[in-house]
Amino acid sequence: MTIHWWAREGLDYREGELHLGRQNLADLVKSAGTPTFVYDAARVAQNLERIHTALDNHAVAHQIFFALKANRYLPLLTFLKLNDRCGLDVCSPNELRLGRQIGFREAQIVYTNPSVSNEDIECLAVHPRVHVNVDSLSSLRRLATRCPGRSLGLRINPQMGVAYHDHLTYAGDKITKFGIYADRFVEALELAGELGTPINTLHFHVGSGYMTPDLAEFDRVLSRVHEFVAQCPTANTLDIGGGLGVPLKPEDEGLDLDQWAAVIARHAREMGVRLQIEPGDYLVKDAGVLLVEVNTVEAKQGTLFVGVNAGFNIQNSYAYYDMPYGFAPLRHDPAAPVVQLSIAGNINEAIDVFGKEIEMHRPVEGDYLAIVNAGGYGSSMSSNHCMRGEFSEYILLPDAG
Amino acid sequence: MTIHWWAREGLDYREGELHLGRQNLADLVKSAGTPTFVYDAARVAQNLERIHTALDNHAVAHQIFFALKANRYLPLLTFLKLNDRCGLDVCSPNELRLGRQIGFREAQIVYTNPSVSNEDIECLAVHPRVHVNVDSLSSLRRLATRCPGRSLGLRINPQMGVAYHDHLTYAGDKITKFGIYADRFVEALELAGELGTPINTLHFHVGSGYMTPDLAEFDRVLSRVHEFVAQCPTANTLDIGGGLGVPLKPEDEGLDLDQWAAVIARHAREMGVRLQIEPGDYLVKDAGVLLVEVNTVEAKQGTLFVGVNAGFNIQNSYAYYDMPYGFAPLRHDPAAPVVQLSIAGNINEAIDVFGKEIEMHRPVEGDYLAIVNAGGYGSSMSSNHCMRGEFSEYILLPDAG
Repeated sequence: MTIHWWAREGLDYREGELHLGRQNLADLVKSAGTPTFVYDAARVAQNLERIHTALDNHAVAHQIFFALKANRYLPLLTFLKLNDRCGLDVCSPNELRLGRQIGFREAQIVYTNPSVSNEDIECLAVHPRVHVNVDSLSSLRRLATRCPGRSLGLRINPQMGVAYHDHLTYAGDKITKFGIYADRFVEALELAGELGTPINTLHFHVGSGYMTPDLAEFDRVLSRVHEFVAQCPTANTLDIGGGLGVPLKPEDEGLDLDQWAAVIARHAREMGVRLQIEPGDYLVKDAGVLLVEVNTVEAKQGTLFVGVNAGFNIQNSYAYYDMPYGFAPLRHDPAAPVVQLSIAGNINEAIDVFGKEIEMHRPVEGDYLAIVNAGGYGSSMSSNHCMRGEFSEYILLPDAG
Repeated sequence: MTIHWWAREGLDYREGELHLGRQNLADLVKSAGTPTFVYDAARVAQNLERIHTALDNHAVAHQIFFALKANRYLPLLTFLKLNDRCGLDVCSPNELRLGRQIGFREAQIVYTNPSVSNEDIECLAVHPRVHVNVDSLSSLRRLATRCPGRSLGLRINPQMGVAYHDHLTYAGDKITKFGIYADRFVEALELAGELGTPINTLHFHVGSGYMTPDLAEFDRVLSRVHEFVAQCPTANTLDIGGGLGVPLKPEDEGLDLDQWAAVIARHAREMGVRLQIEPGDYLVKDAGVLLVEVNTVEAKQGTLFVGVNAGFNIQNSYAYYDMPYGFAPLRHDPAAPVVQLSIAGNINEAIDVFGKEIEMHRPVEGDYLAIVNAGGYGSSMSSNHCMRGEFSEYILLPDAG
């Protein structure tokens, strides 16, 4: 049924009640209240294994680092540490320290951020085994001076990219702040040479949310990256960042990981490099739902608005990035008419809308909804805007025994 | 000098060092560190008095309520309480309670929010003297049932609006979640009548950031509002919300408050209503600066990027709303060449840019900048995205003696 296009194994109705993994969400909401994020650790682990398997099937030597900024709920990070199938990708000293606090070893952490300050560098200096990708000649110079002889990665900007949304393009036609462009790449390598800094990694990030139809462009980006790798024979590792996309609309076909891995394998062989991948949203987005209560159902000038008790301040993927969600009533009522509606939050701003022109069974006031694909960039980016920042988080961990 | 277009009395250089009020910011930053917001309470009070004076000059009976969501730094709210020249406009139970916590009386508080929950209504029920504008028939029905006989305001939507940016339009052609449209206004009045709820106020919000060139449209909106007022003879108060604009670019002419008050006075006389105004950003935006340190100055593919140690997670007006800032080096160096540059934050996202194509004296790494017009929707909307959420806040209070 297309209005349940978001359903998958592990997220679907059983006897009319929505389940995430084994958890009946209609049950959970009674005690948990709303708004509440619920994350399924098993789904996160499956998403991770799917990447490993695809790359292993194509014999790509690789490591995966979870981009912590997508979701740093401590039980989730603890689960990932115990699961022991990925490291962490961090982008600030506090993220680095958080990873260390829960036992990730320095060698399991990669660090990349723009506008590196000298304070950032002091933190990196006391974590000598963390792998750092520098984003500019300035940070290369300052970090190499502070930490003589430390091997580094260079973040490069191939000036090509793909993404869900123009806002999320990191490396396309527009000149962005990210990385070292071709025009100064030789200068960067020469600077590293003068400073006695081995460059062991080249890093790029192509954008956020690419899917199978984008793989041709992804392939062209990697071809462009060859030109950088060819100039840097000491680089034995290519870090391709994150950006793997999850279907967000009924018509999205998602990312075929086998095709993706095939592209990577071909390029990695030709370049003679091992791979680092930094998925963030890809691991957590479809593993998390945000449970909200419907408090208002009202037609306004011909548009049916469903008001809920949460706002874009706790999950902004649609409001700011035009990345749509799925919407699932916690109890499926097949007798309710299917209508088109907008889902609005409780923040006093026009952009505070979770979805427009949504086809679903008409809810009534007091119903609960799961906002699907809400597991990434929700709590980690949340604010207390309008003092509406309260929510809880639950994680569904695998049963230990 | 056009690169100092943002300069005004109370924010300018003295002997080459930037001062906010009497405070030398170049001095302050030595002890305060960065990133740091600095708010000038005297400027907030002046902005407030300017509105009072303009309306008084046109004999408009009025009350002003500061829209707390723009800035809820407690010393600033405490100053406003002691200053005793405005009440508070709040949009959530926690904002309401915050106002009460620092001594604003219930009668000094107006409450308006979309997607009102029953929990919100319970909070309103125990604050019986807070004036509430209801945003839907649903909340009218529920609040009137819970609090029989309580006078209420109706938020209406005249379906016309003006704003800095399309995102900020609350009431234009697009159907938004806000208020009761003309199509159901009579039904709302009848419902209020049935429930025994006197409607004493009509409220609308025209958008954010209107300036003098928008006053013709503002006038037309008020004409449209007449049609609502004419149908609701019990309404003796018109609440026109906020949205007063501050110049954000060299070419902006700002809002002529005398012309603005003249428009209001004419309509208020014709309608026979007193006025409520709910300015938020207008009171605090140009009273606040965000001090940051330049850590990176580097040309990338022909664009000069200035990297700073703060990100859009603590001030997002430009990243999300295209509302530009001014940029002021804390020390004016007339010998530095004037160049065009982009100012980039330290968050790993492409939208994390504070300004593009800025003309200013070229800074060097280690310099400090004031981001001007940063006093609203900064700390109050800030998040810990990428765990880069740390900042401090200073307020410059008038000397007591």
